[in-house]
Amino acid sequence: MEFLKLARREEIYKEYFPLFKTLRPEQVSIFDALGYFVAEDIVAPENVPYFPRSTVDGYAVKAQDTVGASAENPVLLKVLGEIPMASKPNITLEPGAAVKIWTGGWLPDGADAVVMLENASITGGYVEIYKPVASGENVIKVGDDVRAGDVIIEKGKRLRPQEIGILQTFGILEVKVIRKPRVLLIPTGNELVEPWQEPKDGKIRETNSVTVTSLIREYCELVKRHPIIRDDQKTLYEVLRENMAEFDLILISGGSSKGAGDFGVSAIEEFEGAEILFHGVYISPGKPTIFARVREKPIIGLPGHPVSSFVSTYLFVIPLLKFLQGATDFCPKPAGYLTAGQDIPSKAGREEWIRVKRDGDYLYPLFSESGILSSLVKSDGLVRIPEELEGVHKGFKVEFYPI
Amino acid sequence: MEFLKLARREEIYKEYFPLFKTLRPEQVSIFDALGYFVAEDIVAPENVPYFPRSTVDGYAVKAQDTVGASAENPVLLKVLGEIPMASKPNITLEPGAAVKIWTGGWLPDGADAVVMLENASITGGYVEIYKPVASGENVIKVGDDVRAGDVIIEKGKRLRPQEIGILQTFGILEVKVIRKPRVLLIPTGNELVEPWQEPKDGKIRETNSVTVTSLIREYCELVKRHPIIRDDQKTLYEVLRENMAEFDLILISGGSSKGAGDFGVSAIEEFEGAEILFHGVYISPGKPTIFARVREKPIIGLPGHPVSSFVSTYLFVIPLLKFLQGATDFCPKPAGYLTAGQDIPSKAGREEWIRVKRDGDYLYPLFSESGILSSLVKSDGLVRIPEELEGVHKGFKVEFYPI
Repeated sequence: MEFLKLARREEIYKEYFPLFKTLRPEQVSIFDALGYFVAEDIVAPENVPYFPRSTVDGYAVKAQDTVGASAENPVLLKVLGEIPMASKPNITLEPGAAVKIWTGGWLPDGADAVVMLENASITGGYVEIYKPVASGENVIKVGDDVRAGDVIIEKGKRLRPQEIGILQTFGILEVKVIRKPRVLLIPTGNELVEPWQEPKDGKIRETNSVTVTSLIREYCELVKRHPIIRDDQKTLYEVLRENMAEFDLILISGGSSKGAGDFGVSAIEEFEGAEILFHGVYISPGKPTIFARVREKPIIGLPGHPVSSFVSTYLFVIPLLKFLQGATDFCPKPAGYLTAGQDIPSKAGREEWIRVKRDGDYLYPLFSESGILSSLVKSDGLVRIPEELEGVHKGFKVEFYPI
Repeated sequence: MEFLKLARREEIYKEYFPLFKTLRPEQVSIFDALGYFVAEDIVAPENVPYFPRSTVDGYAVKAQDTVGASAENPVLLKVLGEIPMASKPNITLEPGAAVKIWTGGWLPDGADAVVMLENASITGGYVEIYKPVASGENVIKVGDDVRAGDVIIEKGKRLRPQEIGILQTFGILEVKVIRKPRVLLIPTGNELVEPWQEPKDGKIRETNSVTVTSLIREYCELVKRHPIIRDDQKTLYEVLRENMAEFDLILISGGSSKGAGDFGVSAIEEFEGAEILFHGVYISPGKPTIFARVREKPIIGLPGHPVSSFVSTYLFVIPLLKFLQGATDFCPKPAGYLTAGQDIPSKAGREEWIRVKRDGDYLYPLFSESGILSSLVKSDGLVRIPEELEGVHKGFKVEFYPI
């Protein structure tokens, strides 16, 4: 296969992704919203807390009344009563007085601090305070956590469990998100048989599609796998033409047979106005990745080699799926740094993504030209070796991308 | 709340988890198996590849025929024909001969290496070889990737996309996994109202349950949320009694009101043979976590504070759900190390889990007693500060746990 137009990875995120539009928004219940990207800034409709709360069990006081309090010279305050939990106080604090309060309780008017139980002791209708408190101590004021009108979740952020939680706090039970993409995957290859068939005479079972669909499933409304098609330009063109309208992204999983990449490109080029954005990337594995635009929609041609297919999906398909959902944070980034447990060689001039096995804080490369499937199963993640380096030495810190 | 029996985090994984049994296995289709833990070692039923394959486009040869080949003195070999893709060769290679072959093609009998196209040139019925190859070069032998009888996936491993892929390669379409747990979550608290209700008089909307269920959903067959119950021992006991048989794990989400933890413990202790395994953990946040065993089943009491509830779920509930599924790798571990962008203080004597915001390779702590909900939403992960440290200085590497 010849690579007519090679791209750099960063260039793909910065220059090619923005050629595609964000999908349209839709309303979803917060109970189904996990993993969606929000379509607009979400603003707090009210203050949290909406009343001044105590953060401890103790006595609500005027801070000025406690000045100078110590174990030797306690301050004596009159106890006016107790604020029951989950109720609005009907007491107003006078100077020289205190009110018992529980964690989460509503601070009465006139009080501006809470003395913890352990710094006080009750004697008759009075409480002895052994330690002064500053104004505001052990109190959360109205709006201290979130102020009405504040942006609580920014447009383009993904909804994690804590975002769902904060929405529920405000009683926001529906949220405007970007709908998830519908994806079609077309496995191609004369040498492939369906997974339930017995391969013979040099044929093998098609397997990339189940790996790819498993990788991307959470980012998609639907992933449909087409039956295997032969390496034939006309057939591929027909399948693309019939399905183009229904899907937001089409993936062509290339066979490893002769010229597979080229018939893919030719089939795409049959569409009027089709653009082959690039035809190969300066990375390894994953180089023979194709990215095209047809009728404003993206088509990605994935390499046939299982490891290349996996890496390409990880580096390009998942980020694109996020991008189509308006994600502001869509580029892969390392989860952190770990230590090379042995030398990791690499060729300068291309970015390498090396499968590694993790042992505690150490990473060990899994090299084996032949151990294609087994090496992916053995690996705990990928390590990126930048283009300008010829590998890294044992003991160096490397970027770790768990897979 | 008094903590009668405090536990250390490591002790919980090592001593308390093993008190519970792995759930029973079940068969699932590989197309539904993503995220399950396998119930037994899975063994390769056949060799991969099952025939000797070429890894390049080129000429299948006997390596010994190419000895001494160079651009100046090429070796001339007779071309016997071509191995079509995806077919078994019917040619046997004689000395002095070569056969054209494609990547993935079946190496003919008699050949032991492949010369790449770029190191050869065809002239009439002959090919000139410009570079010698070693025996085995550019060839994957039978079983080089996986040997029949090898364990391809070990018992207790979680099925990721690549594991699903390797199963499909072998035509294994069903797999024995441990069934996922059924979980009941009971929110408790007199100060709570349901999320669709308007809180007033110091009441607040119940929100921990949706955060917790969102966090654990992928590890569960089912997560049922009970309606909010009042802080009442008898009511809680009744709810536990009615549901004990149906669920594998019960979570009690504690209200933040007075004595909430204690009525939980008392309700559990009403069951004959109930054991309170611990009643508090040496961590912050998350200290007031309760772990009990009733009729061989685990009950976890989660703190009412939203951040404590989150951290407790992350550190104990998710690991326990994995453990119940027979996972061999269930303890939380850092995704890698990043750099403290500023000093991160912490109290010695307890392990602290600090919310952090990430900016590139730097982490910034989000401290705010009051910014309860907003701090979880702003954070990208947690940093663990070990018990023996009083914080870490700016510039130090810290363990990063993305959330």
